[in-house]
Amino acid sequence: MTVDQSIKDMMQKMGEAAKAAALSLSMASSEQKNKALLESARIIRADRHKILSANAKDREMAQERGLASALLDRLLLDDQRVEAIAASLEAIAELPDPIGDVIADWGRPNGLHISRVRVPLGVIGIIYESRPNVTVDAGALCLKSGNSTILRGGSECVLSNRALHNCLLQGLEAAGLSPESIQLIPTQDRAAVGELLGLVGYVDVIVPRGGKSLIARVQNDSRIPVMAHLDGICHVYVDADADREKAVAITLNAKMRRTGICGAAETLLIDQTVLKSHLPSILEALKAAGCQLRGDKRIQACDPDIRPASPEDWDTEYLEAILSIKTVNGLEEALRHIADHGSHHTDCIITENVQTAEQFLTRVDSAIVMHNSSTQFADGGEFGMGAEIGISTGKMHARGPVGLEQLTSYKYQVRGNGQTRP
Amino acid sequence: MTVDQSIKDMMQKMGEAAKAAALSLSMASSEQKNKALLESARIIRADRHKILSANAKDREMAQERGLASALLDRLLLDDQRVEAIAASLEAIAELPDPIGDVIADWGRPNGLHISRVRVPLGVIGIIYESRPNVTVDAGALCLKSGNSTILRGGSECVLSNRALHNCLLQGLEAAGLSPESIQLIPTQDRAAVGELLGLVGYVDVIVPRGGKSLIARVQNDSRIPVMAHLDGICHVYVDADADREKAVAITLNAKMRRTGICGAAETLLIDQTVLKSHLPSILEALKAAGCQLRGDKRIQACDPDIRPASPEDWDTEYLEAILSIKTVNGLEEALRHIADHGSHHTDCIITENVQTAEQFLTRVDSAIVMHNSSTQFADGGEFGMGAEIGISTGKMHARGPVGLEQLTSYKYQVRGNGQTRP
Repeated sequence: MTVDQSIKDMMQKMGEAAKAAALSLSMASSEQKNKALLESARIIRADRHKILSANAKDREMAQERGLASALLDRLLLDDQRVEAIAASLEAIAELPDPIGDVIADWGRPNGLHISRVRVPLGVIGIIYESRPNVTVDAGALCLKSGNSTILRGGSECVLSNRALHNCLLQGLEAAGLSPESIQLIPTQDRAAVGELLGLVGYVDVIVPRGGKSLIARVQNDSRIPVMAHLDGICHVYVDADADREKAVAITLNAKMRRTGICGAAETLLIDQTVLKSHLPSILEALKAAGCQLRGDKRIQACDPDIRPASPEDWDTEYLEAILSIKTVNGLEEALRHIADHGSHHTDCIITENVQTAEQFLTRVDSAIVMHNSSTQFADGGEFGMGAEIGISTGKMHARGPVGLEQLTSYKYQVRGNGQTRP
Repeated sequence: MTVDQSIKDMMQKMGEAAKAAALSLSMASSEQKNKALLESARIIRADRHKILSANAKDREMAQERGLASALLDRLLLDDQRVEAIAASLEAIAELPDPIGDVIADWGRPNGLHISRVRVPLGVIGIIYESRPNVTVDAGALCLKSGNSTILRGGSECVLSNRALHNCLLQGLEAAGLSPESIQLIPTQDRAAVGELLGLVGYVDVIVPRGGKSLIARVQNDSRIPVMAHLDGICHVYVDADADREKAVAITLNAKMRRTGICGAAETLLIDQTVLKSHLPSILEALKAAGCQLRGDKRIQACDPDIRPASPEDWDTEYLEAILSIKTVNGLEEALRHIADHGSHHTDCIITENVQTAEQFLTRVDSAIVMHNSSTQFADGGEFGMGAEIGISTGKMHARGPVGLEQLTSYKYQVRGNGQTRP
């Protein structure tokens, strides 16, 4: 495919501008960055009507294009959602600034003093679909961590994103920061994404946010490191020593609290010894909450309403009110199932046996492993890390929730008084 | 280019085997890993004659192929070098095991307890040239950090690498660890490297060690994250407030202690106000040590022996006894020169002015920034981190020396007693 030279040139210029902005942002004070965030919040509130009218036009066009109603709801802004966006800027301003933190420091026998100091990563490319609040959240988290950003929003939200971005630009200006600290790609041409993913030497990391096909495409095409998770196939394992009440409450919450988030449980593994004692109450709670159930033969034997699970079920992230249920013969089989079918995101064991729990926490190779608690806690905010830009299932750099600290790198500062190496 | 299917199949199998080995290595005890290291050391000493005779054959073939004498020396093994290889295994066994370390832990208001625990990265691919000791050092560092390895050595050392790898295999066996924990690619076919760089999902990170063309090729072709540095264009900046004796000693050491290492200085920046007071002694020391000097017009005016520096000189990593010297007008010009021509590796300021030093340490965007000390300290051992597998100039994951800790990731262990998310 030949790409329009004007798009190549535009993306190259955006990359150069982002890199220059990153250099000055890396030296911006916390006060300056917070001022930009708070001013942006003020302007978003003041410009509420502009933002809502841009959003109304976006929705009109989306309706004409026949977008599904769930997607229409995702792109909707109203007074409450605009207020939430402004409030999230204020919350990010409140978070401690990670830049300049001394992560570690030590002396050497020759008198050298070494400090490992936190610095920004540089330039972060964010590719996202729907939800216009991502424009503000992602831009703000990157700004607070001293990184410049190139944003590429979905085509359904062009006008909403532009209106929100405009508020950010005014915030940057009020704080004396470069408008190129947060850039929004002005075209919806798909070639621009391809160019962004190839800006090696200008963009340091790509964070995609959206559906599986978007993430897969970005992971596949990018020449720049990507922080993301493709799937969230999260498991709850009800062990032989599980407490029944905990098993019921946690399974119900892990599956049904919100079914569309990546930390929602998709598969329940249950030890065969507690099929009779624990499973009926679990099934009852799930059915009462409107969950569709699929299971293996032994699970089906417990309840005629349960449909048979196909082999694909064990590898499916439903993101809906559907749960697959499998009988296992002890911890080892549960571990093997998770190793074979999990997505290294979040997995939980329910047991009163501390030794079994520790085995599970050590041996499951996932970003988040849990004991007796709901997988829906897989979230930077719930971890106390403040806002997050996403969750990474990769092992390089950041794993798990990606908050301010995970958007940073470090350097070594070495202080001497004339030392030479023998 | 079509790649021989048998090489594709072989590399795929090595990837699968490495992934399986990584899973069990991630659970191996420190004792088991150390036993493998110490047994390997014992066997290397016992098999010294086999190793030396393999090396003699390698050198014979290399000589026939007309390899330069510097390269021949690099691949030479003798009693002393074999002993050093065995000793390095013992030193790695002595290092603390990073796996299982609790990096951070905290409680949440809802009673959840969260720990961030160190785990291995998984599978590490090492591509290296010459020096057969890398076979052992790299394999051992990866093993100690719980990672399995796929090694690909240079064609000049096939037999030496195989002999050393054989000792590692015996060490693994003695400790009851899988022989697939450290695999050596058995063919010199270049297509195998291409396949290795494409083993997404099997290999987690690639560490290339060797010349610039090797690193560039790996960085360009790899679909897997790469930890490396392409260049080490290190600067010494002699500030207006530099102490002359320190300036002389540090510049001489930074350039001439060893000229072939990545932390060797390549460019001296000197403030115009100390050209008369400091430069003559610096030049005298460098010339006495046999260093060839290239400089701008004002530098040349100080000494008729100095050749003119061309624009390429500022972007050249000589790795030889050559230094380029440039006059600058204060800190800002020095910072600009380093930003334009540096390689984000190691840069040093010599000054008695603490404020100027702090400006330099904050504003130079390099993995290692130094004050009043030689750039030749850019080394994991000198930092007190134990052995290193290389130095990274990237900002993702590890920056600076890559030791045991940098070969790890982490996971979150969350312990609860029935918590569900509201």
